Amino acid sequence: MKGYRGMTREELLAERKELNERYEKCKALGLTLDMTRGKPSPVQLDLSNDIYDTLKEGFKSAKGQDTRNYGVAEGIEEIRTVFAELIGTDKDNLFMGNSSSLNQMFDALMRAMVFGEVDSPKPWSQVEGRKWLCPAPGYDRHFRVTETMGFELIPVPMTENGPDMDMVEELVKDEKVKGIWCVPCYSNPDGVVYSKETCDRLAKMETAAPDFRIFWDNAYVVHHLSEDRNEWGGLPDMLSLCESYGHANRVYEFASSSKITFAGGGISCFAANKDNMTYTKKFLNAQMICTNKVNQLAHARFLPNAEAVYKHMMKHAAILRPKFEACSRVLNEELGGNEDLWHWTDPKGGYFVSFYAMPGTATRIVSMCKEAGVALTPAGASFPYGKDPSDSNIRLAPSFPEVADIEKAVRILAICAKITAVDKLLEEL
Amino acid sequence: MKGYRGMTREELLAERKELNERYEKCKALGLTLDMTRGKPSPVQLDLSNDIYDTLKEGFKSAKGQDTRNYGVAEGIEEIRTVFAELIGTDKDNLFMGNSSSLNQMFDALMRAMVFGEVDSPKPWSQVEGRKWLCPAPGYDRHFRVTETMGFELIPVPMTENGPDMDMVEELVKDEKVKGIWCVPCYSNPDGVVYSKETCDRLAKMETAAPDFRIFWDNAYVVHHLSEDRNEWGGLPDMLSLCESYGHANRVYEFASSSKITFAGGGISCFAANKDNMTYTKKFLNAQMICTNKVNQLAHARFLPNAEAVYKHMMKHAAILRPKFEACSRVLNEELGGNEDLWHWTDPKGGYFVSFYAMPGTATRIVSMCKEAGVALTPAGASFPYGKDPSDSNIRLAPSFPEVADIEKAVRILAICAKITAVDKLLEEL
Repeated sequence: MKGYRGMTREELLAERKELNERYEKCKALGLTLDMTRGKPSPVQLDLSNDIYDTLKEGFKSAKGQDTRNYGVAEGIEEIRTVFAELIGTDKDNLFMGNSSSLNQMFDALMRAMVFGEVDSPKPWSQVEGRKWLCPAPGYDRHFRVTETMGFELIPVPMTENGPDMDMVEELVKDEKVKGIWCVPCYSNPDGVVYSKETCDRLAKMETAAPDFRIFWDNAYVVHHLSEDRNEWGGLPDMLSLCESYGHANRVYEFASSSKITFAGGGISCFAANKDNMTYTKKFLNAQMICTNKVNQLAHARFLPNAEAVYKHMMKHAAILRPKFEACSRVLNEELGGNEDLWHWTDPKGGYFVSFYAMPGTATRIVSMCKEAGVALTPAGASFPYGKDPSDSNIRLAPSFPEVADIEKAVRILAICAKITAVDKLLEEL
Repeated sequence: MKGYRGMTREELLAERKELNERYEKCKALGLTLDMTRGKPSPVQLDLSNDIYDTLKEGFKSAKGQDTRNYGVAEGIEEIRTVFAELIGTDKDNLFMGNSSSLNQMFDALMRAMVFGEVDSPKPWSQVEGRKWLCPAPGYDRHFRVTETMGFELIPVPMTENGPDMDMVEELVKDEKVKGIWCVPCYSNPDGVVYSKETCDRLAKMETAAPDFRIFWDNAYVVHHLSEDRNEWGGLPDMLSLCESYGHANRVYEFASSSKITFAGGGISCFAANKDNMTYTKKFLNAQMICTNKVNQLAHARFLPNAEAVYKHMMKHAAILRPKFEACSRVLNEELGGNEDLWHWTDPKGGYFVSFYAMPGTATRIVSMCKEAGVALTPAGASFPYGKDPSDSNIRLAPSFPEVADIEKAVRILAICAKITAVDKLLEEL
């Protein structure tokens, strides 16, 4: 395909006419396709259908605790051991939660708001003009949590190595900046794995706030797409790394089985160093008696160690790979040769393809796709306050639809991307 | 048995000697008995062992939602329908939670602390000297929640009809008083069912705080001990009642399946009127994607309607009745004829027997029991700050131990109650 930038006005008009015919044909199909949310597909969920069969062996934990009854607030040891292995820390640093790790993040921030952190001069609700760093594009639900709690959201551009650390190091000199969201492995939506240097600088940097916190959401820690373990994203143990730089309290780490077993019935965990955990347990032990230990036991029996989880995740990968490949294939077919106008990610894990349209066109593309029956995440959704300053990024979630539907949806997206680009180039001529 | 108050010094000394011999014999047995927590026994938990077999029918809700996936934050309709029937309200007033309803209460208060209620002049964390009414004796974990959040706990004596309403009506004239804990059916630990008049006055009273809240913990709403439905405690629908008096936002209602299915793996719910629910959902939808819907589906299939729950609860009652009867029998045998010195409850439901020793003796009784191998809830535990002004109340939890152990434990308790009473009477002579 000839580069659009090299075309004359006439060539562009001809291209525009042809694209319009294709777009109208697509609309006439009356499609209803949905590429909005990073949900596992039914076939992926089927992989765990037998999880509760394991309870036929009885309800006692390895230590003989009756999981059906009250107690063991932090969660049974065997499941803490599995998750500790996955995120690379010690089981005693873990506290298990129910199905949503987002819930654990929200609760952690609510505790900081009401009680302050163990090293806080005062509760965060009393800090006027409190701020939170938001690597962007990032996870909309993260941003919503801190927005709900009255933090000013400060965007930090993402690079291929994680958040722009020069900017982060500058911003944390403001004592109102209390923390940062991080999805360090296969970041949502760009699929970036933080580099060793990024992790190091996050752990090492001096912050004006004595109670600065990294919310390290290891949502995709085992969500690799490749069979080749050399290609798997790997991360240092952030708890130890922060401690090694004298910032032992800096990080809370989160993970869940939502995209390992059941998104609507999994388990979650958070990890913290000893001081944070001791302090946090004071409140957790007031908040509840225990989380669902029966579900923990079912999970621990179904996936008894990290190796079992890896094997299970390769079954997910086998289902997901053709979907990501379909995205790539169609985008290349339609948009190849114009990399100066568009680019997109080809991630090694996680749940998203991040598409960057010609600046100033993403909103129109999403709206045109909608007219043609393709639901996409609203343009800007991955940015604080839903505002992408370049109006360029569109998050594609290929996990849920079938391959044939992904091909159709992505082709329509590509056509709309081309139409908007041609229109923009025509304006500029 | 002759009344102790009618005894001469010599008679009391003789009684004391005999009691001491009995106490020493008990100690020599080297028992380890535990009457501390209201935990279901393994036999009760066994009643629900097959609950996950229902998932073999598939994971779709009645409305066709895949419970294994994200979504349906408020919980699937069929389980909301069951709980709505149990607590006597509409399914649309319900929001389901995970295993702990205490967690939902804690979260509701945290929201009020950080964001305020829908009708709050300001967030509660900004109300200096905030206060909370604590009918006492009551549930220690309730008191701990409001204490943790910095409320001054104001005790209100319990009567046989619920909290002393004359006092409540007086106390709520203070605008710093933001709410009250209530366990309206088979209250913890006295087993009181609030009278119609008490409910009415709670709904009707004028409060100085515009955002006063009743936390209506219907923990034992179906936890009857009698087969005779005429003996079951019944309560008005508090949401409608409050609305009928123009205080529609006044009440949050809570319930759970902890003592219906699994204490460590059940589900919970809270109910609120439309204004409260709409306001609360803003925060709940930031907090999490959904709670465990697979568990909701298992529960809805296992106990598909209120009648199924009632039948299931009668199996619990059949297991619990002999245990409560054992308490009663031994207390009557040992302590009958001295009702001026001691009294205790004979509840029609719930999980506790509340024993009132001679004032000033409860702490010593608990300590003597401990020496003889019987663990009891610390004296005063059922009062705000753990302080029973009369040092009289001891909460007995007969659900977990076997009948034979209950008999032994209660007999030791009775012996200790008698020893401490005789000693006190001797002092007074």
